[in-house]
Amino acid sequence: MNGALLVVGTGLVGTSIGLALEGRDVLLTDADPATLAAAVGRGAGTAWDGRTRARHGVLAVPPEAIAPSLAALHTNAASWSHVASVQAPVQAAVQRRVPPAVATLLCGAHPLAGKESSGPLAAAADLFAGRPWALCPAPDTVDAAVDAARALAVRCGAVPVELTAAEHDATVALVSHLPQVTASALAAALLGAGGPLSLAGPGLQDTTRIAASDPALWGQILTQNAAAVAPLVRELGFGLLQAADDLDAGLDLRDLLARGNRGRALVPVKRGSTDVDFAVVRVRVADRRGQLAAVLVAASAAGIDVEDVRVEHLPSRASGVIELVVAAGRLDDARARLASAGWDTGAA
Amino acid sequence: MNGALLVVGTGLVGTSIGLALEGRDVLLTDADPATLAAAVGRGAGTAWDGRTRARHGVLAVPPEAIAPSLAALHTNAASWSHVASVQAPVQAAVQRRVPPAVATLLCGAHPLAGKESSGPLAAAADLFAGRPWALCPAPDTVDAAVDAARALAVRCGAVPVELTAAEHDATVALVSHLPQVTASALAAALLGAGGPLSLAGPGLQDTTRIAASDPALWGQILTQNAAAVAPLVRELGFGLLQAADDLDAGLDLRDLLARGNRGRALVPVKRGSTDVDFAVVRVRVADRRGQLAAVLVAASAAGIDVEDVRVEHLPSRASGVIELVVAAGRLDDARARLASAGWDTGAA
Repeated sequence: MNGALLVVGTGLVGTSIGLALEGRDVLLTDADPATLAAAVGRGAGTAWDGRTRARHGVLAVPPEAIAPSLAALHTNAASWSHVASVQAPVQAAVQRRVPPAVATLLCGAHPLAGKESSGPLAAAADLFAGRPWALCPAPDTVDAAVDAARALAVRCGAVPVELTAAEHDATVALVSHLPQVTASALAAALLGAGGPLSLAGPGLQDTTRIAASDPALWGQILTQNAAAVAPLVRELGFGLLQAADDLDAGLDLRDLLARGNRGRALVPVKRGSTDVDFAVVRVRVADRRGQLAAVLVAASAAGIDVEDVRVEHLPSRASGVIELVVAAGRLDDARARLASAGWDTGAA
Repeated sequence: MNGALLVVGTGLVGTSIGLALEGRDVLLTDADPATLAAAVGRGAGTAWDGRTRARHGVLAVPPEAIAPSLAALHTNAASWSHVASVQAPVQAAVQRRVPPAVATLLCGAHPLAGKESSGPLAAAADLFAGRPWALCPAPDTVDAAVDAARALAVRCGAVPVELTAAEHDATVALVSHLPQVTASALAAALLGAGGPLSLAGPGLQDTTRIAASDPALWGQILTQNAAAVAPLVRELGFGLLQAADDLDAGLDLRDLLARGNRGRALVPVKRGSTDVDFAVVRVRVADRRGQLAAVLVAASAAGIDVEDVRVEHLPSRASGVIELVVAAGRLDDARARLASAGWDTGAA
């Protein structure tokens, strides 16, 4: 056995894993020769010869193909992991269809990264950079499989997060699948607009962004996790009906809005921190080429650590606002430094 | 009559109007002396003497105070506008409570801008920069009032959008109030999380951002526009119940997701354009001070017009990804220029 990684399935995720490893010691295989050739052409690795035994194998195939693939290929790697977006159904299928000793070689895993587009040509070396990579071993999964899956996640630039298959499925239902259904339904409501959307602002942009996701891919993901997703979608639906009834009855929605405040405070933003750790400095600039760079150069020169930056354009005029996100404790200092460097920070 | 603007109510919006005009020829009044003093202290204008007649007056007071304020003050300006977030109920109240000749002096208006915080200390000169400013004259509103309201919007850096009061209320219900209720309800659902939110990604961040809005302020706004909002909230609620039933029945949600795609395509993003006009160049950088500036300086030097920029940090390591948003037709060119300048754009 050598130290190679065997990637089974060279779609978006499999090819991106190979690219993240710069193709070094990566063996690739795919049921479709053209897909395999495209991945090899991207530099994700070399085509597997069907015999070489790897240290670890990744089943980057659709969920329903994981158990059959493991049954057919298990002798070709010392341990295995997969990348399915739903864990418990895959774990159950493996237990039904693969001998117990083989099943223990597989660590369920799920890199939480994706794109609108799919296939090896959409793959990217940085697809997993900074993203969580869930590790969901069963109680009897061998340590070697968990360790190899974790090492792979780290080599791809991801952040390993270990939890059970059931915890994973419940968590992604809440933090990923429910928001997707909600954003899609909200965006679909816009199709009924009689008037123009000219009054739309950043709130509508943010709340509907993921409604641009691929319907075929997300149709599958939601179906696979239907048992966890459906109750959450139903509960949100009933919550909205209650809100509508309250509005009709002349009641205000202050309680719902306050609960929303508390829920939002749980959402991790940059570096695992939450909103309350950051503050925004608004800088008004002429909206001409290079202003964004000039502001950031000035911030850097002034010793301001900019965590994030947002640009707000003015549709009808040649000026704009650049928002610099800084640590909350540094807000006044950052604003003062930029103002003393001659920038318009809007402070009185 | 001189050319002054009389601002009645020096809260967030009234004071921001004064600051946008740099306090020049701005007369301020407020029922609360401390609030007025704070606005004057911010440089939003000078305290009104109770006699000087203005060219135009802005009633930046709560919606229910607009009709009484107009009745009491109408002789003090040649024309009037207000800033209420709901138009038709205010228009009706004015028609009930003010003589017809006086009512024609008032142009309903609504700058679509706000902040989490309120009051004169939260005011900002750039609050309205680039934001829509709805103008909703009644059929008999005098031209002078509409013209003055439009001129004020432009002087504040906003984009005037003329529509009827009913159109306004229906549009903001759809593009602002429905997203607010939805985001709040979605964020509130997170309070039921048994597990960690460690797997959350940008989708959850975006869909819940406005759930941080002020419950007291939004409770009022939603109540005032309840007649337009409640049916939309109810329809979305029923849509989610149907989605839950479909998931339980083993059906996929591809149709809903596809309708979401079409709705999202209607949402204006930068410069009034939609998503399809823009593309993203991802640049991988060491996450140290100044990298963001360096990338933008390089882009500027290479003649790349950067429309927007996003930063994705890697929680556990010293590197990150900077996304530059460019015109879709310039994507390949921008990527090639950055790569040839030595930046890692992830291209094969």
